[in-house]
Amino acid sequence: MTISPFNNGSTIIIPSSFTSESKDQRIKTYKVGQIARAAAVFRVNNIIIYRDSQFDDTKFINLLLAYVETPQYLRKRLFPLKEQLRYAGTLPPLRTPHHPIESRSSHINVGEYRVGVVVSQPKKKISEKKVGSDKYAWVDIGIDSPVPLKVLQQEVSIGERVNVRISLRRPLQVKLVEKDEIPLYWGYSIIIANSLSEALKELSKQGALIIVTGRQGQVLNTSVLTNIGSMIRQSSLTAIVFGSPKQGVESILANEGTQLSHIQCETLNIIPEQGTATVRTEEAIWATLSVLNLVR
Amino acid sequence: MTISPFNNGSTIIIPSSFTSESKDQRIKTYKVGQIARAAAVFRVNNIIIYRDSQFDDTKFINLLLAYVETPQYLRKRLFPLKEQLRYAGTLPPLRTPHHPIESRSSHINVGEYRVGVVVSQPKKKISEKKVGSDKYAWVDIGIDSPVPLKVLQQEVSIGERVNVRISLRRPLQVKLVEKDEIPLYWGYSIIIANSLSEALKELSKQGALIIVTGRQGQVLNTSVLTNIGSMIRQSSLTAIVFGSPKQGVESILANEGTQLSHIQCETLNIIPEQGTATVRTEEAIWATLSVLNLVR
Repeated sequence: MTISPFNNGSTIIIPSSFTSESKDQRIKTYKVGQIARAAAVFRVNNIIIYRDSQFDDTKFINLLLAYVETPQYLRKRLFPLKEQLRYAGTLPPLRTPHHPIESRSSHINVGEYRVGVVVSQPKKKISEKKVGSDKYAWVDIGIDSPVPLKVLQQEVSIGERVNVRISLRRPLQVKLVEKDEIPLYWGYSIIIANSLSEALKELSKQGALIIVTGRQGQVLNTSVLTNIGSMIRQSSLTAIVFGSPKQGVESILANEGTQLSHIQCETLNIIPEQGTATVRTEEAIWATLSVLNLVR
Repeated sequence: MTISPFNNGSTIIIPSSFTSESKDQRIKTYKVGQIARAAAVFRVNNIIIYRDSQFDDTKFINLLLAYVETPQYLRKRLFPLKEQLRYAGTLPPLRTPHHPIESRSSHINVGEYRVGVVVSQPKKKISEKKVGSDKYAWVDIGIDSPVPLKVLQQEVSIGERVNVRISLRRPLQVKLVEKDEIPLYWGYSIIIANSLSEALKELSKQGALIIVTGRQGQVLNTSVLTNIGSMIRQSSLTAIVFGSPKQGVESILANEGTQLSHIQCETLNIIPEQGTATVRTEEAIWATLSVLNLVR
């Protein structure tokens, strides 16, 4: 199954077609940036892109979401120059805790977390005498020079993105940590699903609370919101599903041969009495995450 | 006073500097479009732009907000081509009730409302025999040809934007209506204030409920939201104040020589536990309007 595993926490499920309304690549880029920003502001843990057969911009969306989620100091190492990244420079930075701007090694403290990339494979104490006789890989964590990471076996390979914690100050040394050990918002993972039904099936299997947004849903007010809040707090995984510019979630599923009514979910109208005929995917994402953020 | 009169209802107060973070004119244009969209989706009646001494993009913001708010069919008449409107074509349409797409006169019904522009001054029954012997001005309402508007005196002048109601079907005839007689969301007005303090002073005088957004505010949860909701429903005018990319509302007022604590207002943190160091003005607008829309 391509779409597992998920991180716990909050997940948004967006169509591969949400960029289809714009032909200008700068605007397309900016739109993806808006989703990345919304995900970061509201601490979203997973973004699932589902293939909409009407317009499949999965590659572009995936590339840009991944690019923006990567700390600036690692982008050159992890992303070769590509035409699709042409306007990535106009994207607003996320300014999350995992995108620190401090680059002076003298200002790094024990206990801090960093995203890094492995730049040399485990060897015995390369050039760095004080490190002792253990085996070390070297990791670029966005400061003056790579720092040593003690390893037992070949746990890491060159080019790999890793999460580390500063374990020693002089000389600097880091240890590997798992994402879910880090008590800070640490970015989102991107998952690609072949269809919306596939994504929902997998999420149901994992016991996720599924929230579908759409105009035909239950009108959200404070009492409905309070109820949804207790459901969210009881679930380890909450997944919020957004329709495409052309179709609501119900029609998309119908085209895939699935009925919305067969899926256990809450359907909510997040924008009661909307003043416009339609609400765009990126707009619905901002509106929905803002509202649900109050009760998580 | 330049900043009166206000329409009743909901008002947002935004800085003249919210476009300052981007150098690309397409992106600046798009950002203004996002605010116009948010205003339309959440039925905002007034947008006040206050001059931020650090960056004054009032002209550009005002022009674009006015352009987007104007029905497509009247834009050519009301907006001469300007360099600043160069990328206005990339702006998403508002798709509000006052931007109808129907342009066939045969599909227009009595009782419908339209925005129009006066294209000829009151004269006696020009070319249109069935109209009778009254005085008529002719109004472009975005259909095949201008329609007659019975006038008593010189109530209208050429080039004026007016709101009308279809009063007769064959031949088509319209009557002037006031914006607040129209039971539909009918766009926003734009008001320019020389400073934030000036805007707030005037709003206080008019008894507006003033809501200030910022990270130091009261953390919003469902019970706070319920309280704010009853305050909103008791006020005929609710004004929501947003800070600039560089400064919060409190510092902006301090620089103008006013203290936030001297203003009667509710200060709210709309995005509890935000995952990013900062939230952009256009992002805060989406988040705030989404949340307050649930209780109006």
